[in-house]
Amino acid sequence: MQKIINYISIVEEALKATAQKKEPFTLYEPITYTLSLGGKRIRPALLLLANNLFDGKDEDALNSALAIEVFHNFTLVHDDIMDDAPLRRGQESVYKKWGTNVAILSGDVMLMQALQLLNKKNHPHLHSMLNMFNATAIQVCEGQQMDMDFETSTTVSIDDYLRMIELKTAVLLACSLKMGAVIANASSDNASHIYEFGKNLGIAFQLMDDVLDLYGNPKKVGKRVGGDVIANKKTYLLLKAQELAVGKTKKDLDFCLSSSVLEDTAKVEKVTSIFNKLNIKKLAIDEMNLFYNTAISHLDSIDAATEKKQVFEDFAKNLMKREN
Amino acid sequence: MQKIINYISIVEEALKATAQKKEPFTLYEPITYTLSLGGKRIRPALLLLANNLFDGKDEDALNSALAIEVFHNFTLVHDDIMDDAPLRRGQESVYKKWGTNVAILSGDVMLMQALQLLNKKNHPHLHSMLNMFNATAIQVCEGQQMDMDFETSTTVSIDDYLRMIELKTAVLLACSLKMGAVIANASSDNASHIYEFGKNLGIAFQLMDDVLDLYGNPKKVGKRVGGDVIANKKTYLLLKAQELAVGKTKKDLDFCLSSSVLEDTAKVEKVTSIFNKLNIKKLAIDEMNLFYNTAISHLDSIDAATEKKQVFEDFAKNLMKREN
Repeated sequence: MQKIINYISIVEEALKATAQKKEPFTLYEPITYTLSLGGKRIRPALLLLANNLFDGKDEDALNSALAIEVFHNFTLVHDDIMDDAPLRRGQESVYKKWGTNVAILSGDVMLMQALQLLNKKNHPHLHSMLNMFNATAIQVCEGQQMDMDFETSTTVSIDDYLRMIELKTAVLLACSLKMGAVIANASSDNASHIYEFGKNLGIAFQLMDDVLDLYGNPKKVGKRVGGDVIANKKTYLLLKAQELAVGKTKKDLDFCLSSSVLEDTAKVEKVTSIFNKLNIKKLAIDEMNLFYNTAISHLDSIDAATEKKQVFEDFAKNLMKREN
Repeated sequence: MQKIINYISIVEEALKATAQKKEPFTLYEPITYTLSLGGKRIRPALLLLANNLFDGKDEDALNSALAIEVFHNFTLVHDDIMDDAPLRRGQESVYKKWGTNVAILSGDVMLMQALQLLNKKNHPHLHSMLNMFNATAIQVCEGQQMDMDFETSTTVSIDDYLRMIELKTAVLLACSLKMGAVIANASSDNASHIYEFGKNLGIAFQLMDDVLDLYGNPKKVGKRVGGDVIANKKTYLLLKAQELAVGKTKKDLDFCLSSSVLEDTAKVEKVTSIFNKLNIKKLAIDEMNLFYNTAISHLDSIDAATEKKQVFEDFAKNLMKREN
């Protein structure tokens, strides 16, 4: 893991150096603010790591790594408007601090700055890097739109849900890894395998997140147990339960979802007992393991030094065992 | 002008072909809607014309022309949220029709689609085209931010104003022309001259717009006379008047700007008489001519066939004599 930690601090330092004193100040201050709020910097670190896996030089990949991180932060700035979210990483969101207009426009500029970073040098693979980046960026927006559509839809299937988390979360992780590989001149087979490793790991991670919301240790997870249940959020757990529940169980579940008298704690308790009856936790973990194992099999298929690949497996293991 | 009209219809046809049936429908429907609302398609037509000036092939430049038009429409979708504008080209704005969230996200996708169009082929000048596009896109946002900042600022100078209209309006026109030139392998001198032609013409056009708001024939201008005056909009006219007014004239002007009892028609009349006393119309037209003449001198400096350059001069003349 030391290698990833090193890359994270390289990214953190490079991001600091991008702090923007430009005019108009009202446009650039929120950008500097957003990029200074922290975050795990996992995506850019993985891009650098993938580049290193195929013997690329760090300095050839750093701007692209920053591009991915700036893009990711752009999505957060715009998502916070759409989700009416007052907080981001424990601080006021740009939307809350400066209002909708500033958040829209500063976000727009961040997206363009991401493209400037990507285009900083005339890289031999520029065309395919941009193809990859633009397609991924659009997919992330599609995922966000699906997520918003799900709130009011009554016909969300498990497949819809898996597609949504793939687009909203997993493809950017996948794209980061593939971009690192492409910059290092990896073969197209290797680039595909590392993309699939990232995509499947991203989906597995999101499924684990769903499980932990209800079954995690609140001290380790760092948020209230059952938040998704209280909000009727269409997670894998709920959708699977809706798929399987019949008769009285279905009636009980529908009651929990529609009742306006049920208290939060009672609701979480009741829904948990329904989920347990339907064996939902195990089913979710099975599904998660399916994606995790697919990720690892793609990692295995990569033609590269075993000890370098081990770093990725360690990372994947570490990511998944936050709490179980 | 026939050549431009031809290019406009080529662009219109090509835009129709981009109509998007993709999922999620909630994301793509507003994009198709926006691109079908019409508009003059001046920027993409000028890109094709500039490409033609330097003997480039239409088909090599068409995707970039569409990119510029999609980008321009992206700015309109986001601007309508920021300006709380219910109408766009006489129809409901995306923001009004589908709400803020859809307008943000569909706009974001349009920006990325513009970049996809630009990157559709691996053009030998891709790197410099993207440099130009990204820098221009950021400048347009800076211009929009300055415009919003001006609403509440009491210290806007004429220079600030000229810089704002340069960024918000003129640089995109300039970039369209230069991109056409670059795609056609124009020399860097020629590319610079056509950029400066577009930039200065764009500023002249915006200054004329300011003059026409108050001094134009309402039938020809197509909007209410003095709309800017009623809204206390910081146009060239008002800023120049504020710069020049002293004594009683200054007091009268301040009264008009701050009075809550003055009726719209009386306000327009009173402000017009102050402007007339200060000779503001002539000063604005002088300034406009300065930029217009600079534009034409850059056009003259371009090393290309005179009859082909004539089309640009005809276009510029036509643009400026809407009403005078």
